[in-house]
Amino acid sequence: MHVVVNAAMSADGKLSTRRREQVVISGEADFRRVDELRASVDAVMVGVGTVLADNPSLTVDDSDLVAERDQRGDSPQPARVVADSHARTPPDARVLDGAAETYVLVAEEEPREHRQTLEDAGATVVVAGENRVELPDALDQLEAHGVEALMVEGGGELIFSLFADDLVDELSVFVAPKIIGGRDAPTLADGDGFVRDFPELELAGVERIDDGVLLEYDC
Amino acid sequence: MHVVVNAAMSADGKLSTRRREQVVISGEADFRRVDELRASVDAVMVGVGTVLADNPSLTVDDSDLVAERDQRGDSPQPARVVADSHARTPPDARVLDGAAETYVLVAEEEPREHRQTLEDAGATVVVAGENRVELPDALDQLEAHGVEALMVEGGGELIFSLFADDLVDELSVFVAPKIIGGRDAPTLADGDGFVRDFPELELAGVERIDDGVLLEYDC
Ligand SMILES: NC(=O)c1ccc[n+]([C@@H]2O[C@H](COP(=O)([O-])OP(=O)(O)OC[C@H]3O[C@@H](n4cnc5c(N)ncnc54)[C@H](OP(=O)(O)O)[C@@H]3O)[C@@H](O)[C@H]2O)c1
Ligand SMILES: NC(=O)c1ccc[n+]([C@@H]2O[C@H](COP(=O)([O-])OP(=O)(O)OC[C@H]3O[C@@H](n4cnc5c(N)ncnc54)[C@H](OP(=O)(O)O)[C@@H]3O)[C@@H](O)[C@H]2O)c1
Repeated sequence: MHVVVNAAMSADGKLSTRRREQVVISGEADFRRVDELRASVDAVMVGVGTVLADNPSLTVDDSDLVAERDQRGDSPQPARVVADSHARTPPDARVLDGAAETYVLVAEEEPREHRQTLEDAGATVVVAGENRVELPDALDQLEAHGVEALMVEGGGELIFSLFADDLVDELSVFVAPKIIGGRDAPTLADGDGFVRDFPELELAGVERIDDGVLLEYDC
Repeated sequence: MHVVVNAAMSADGKLSTRRREQVVISGEADFRRVDELRASVDAVMVGVGTVLADNPSLTVDDSDLVAERDQRGDSPQPARVVADSHARTPPDARVLDGAAETYVLVAEEEPREHRQTLEDAGATVVVAGENRVELPDALDQLEAHGVEALMVEGGGELIFSLFADDLVDELSVFVAPKIIGGRDAPTLADGDGFVRDFPELELAGVERIDDGVLLEYDC
């Protein structure tokens, strides 16, 4: 599987404020780029923290891009994936609106009735890991469902885990010319953090876009 | 006074690890650039958190740059400034090694004997703010001491306060191609964080340097 992480951060590395309220970080050109990236993959993934904070739909916005997917024999929309060990995704979350197939990754210890609630809401439940979603196993299972190209949109907890498990192939970050600040604000990679053996990336692209800069890395 | 903030961060916005242990973030070309920047200013400032974590000397390394300062009638080394409300700078810290003039900014409530200890160690003590250094007042006092150009090297707590007080004129950040991660690791701007009215910067320069990228902003 090929995994691309894409996010937008402030110049000081924040994905949103300490209140976890969404901030408009990128501009129109970046929005278009992200829409194209979504349209190019089999599935778009977030952590349940992002579902609870932002309630995103994760669908492709541009109808031409949707039509192109259709023409080439893909589903009109990429699938959606939520890493959600304890099935906290609300049944009325936008990712469960039926606009695309949705996989919810849960842990084994999660009671069967919670899985059932998600399935009743239209999700395909994937079980991986005892008490927390084990990403290598979960991604293998998604691959068995046909997900070859996966885009990850955040947040920082999920992105850190993907780096810790050495699962990231590409990282693209739009860096906005603003300061959000906050020792408790989410950053591009949170989790426990590395203290040695830092994942080393290769800077593959640097491009001014909107009023900021897009940094692209091979991982 | 003209204030330039300069720092090196990982691709995910971290200044060091969650253990606050220094990480080699930038390379040789960036080291040279930072040395030139230091040589061009009247004083180099950090927060006491950086003194306690890294014990930096903050001096210009290249003897040619030191000689050039001397030739143009400046002190061989720029002054050093520590924001240190409660006089926690150890008397044997490198910033008090006598290699350059050192200002320690403390709060009014700090007992006189602690100020005396710092003065005995060679510092010039500047008092500003009741229980925490008030930066606008402190910078005014530094200006009265002849500091027209100030470079700030971190850490994230001090940098946030400078943005909150609207005191930053320029920001330059070297972004290294590595992930440090960690929800508790220091970032480029920590503090309480903004929740609205985010300081907006203007991206003035984008340059590949070493294996990373240097982003320069007007603030
Ligand atoms: N600017 C952007 O591009 C962007 C993009 C996305 C999000 N955001 C912002 O990011 C914030 C949310 O980020 P976040 O870091 O709090 O949440 P997140 O990464 O979206 O979700 C984290 C949650 O995912 C679940 N999870 C399941 N398996 C995991 C694993 N193996 N590793 C890590 N997490 C796993 C965990 O909850 P369980 O233990 O319950 O499973 C964890 O708490 C919001 O403020 C949102 O606005 C910004
Ligand atoms: N990569 C880089 O370029 C770079 C550069 C510098 C530092 N660092 C790293 O950054 C970390 C230290 O950063 P940090 O954020 O913990 O510490 P910091 O910003 O260096 O210092 C913070 C301290 O400064 C004092 N201070 C006084 N007046 C202040 C004010 N008005 N606003 C804010 N602080 C004020 C406070 O202590 P009192 O209340 O006691 O006064 C505060 O705790 C270390 O891990 C270091 O390695 C990295």
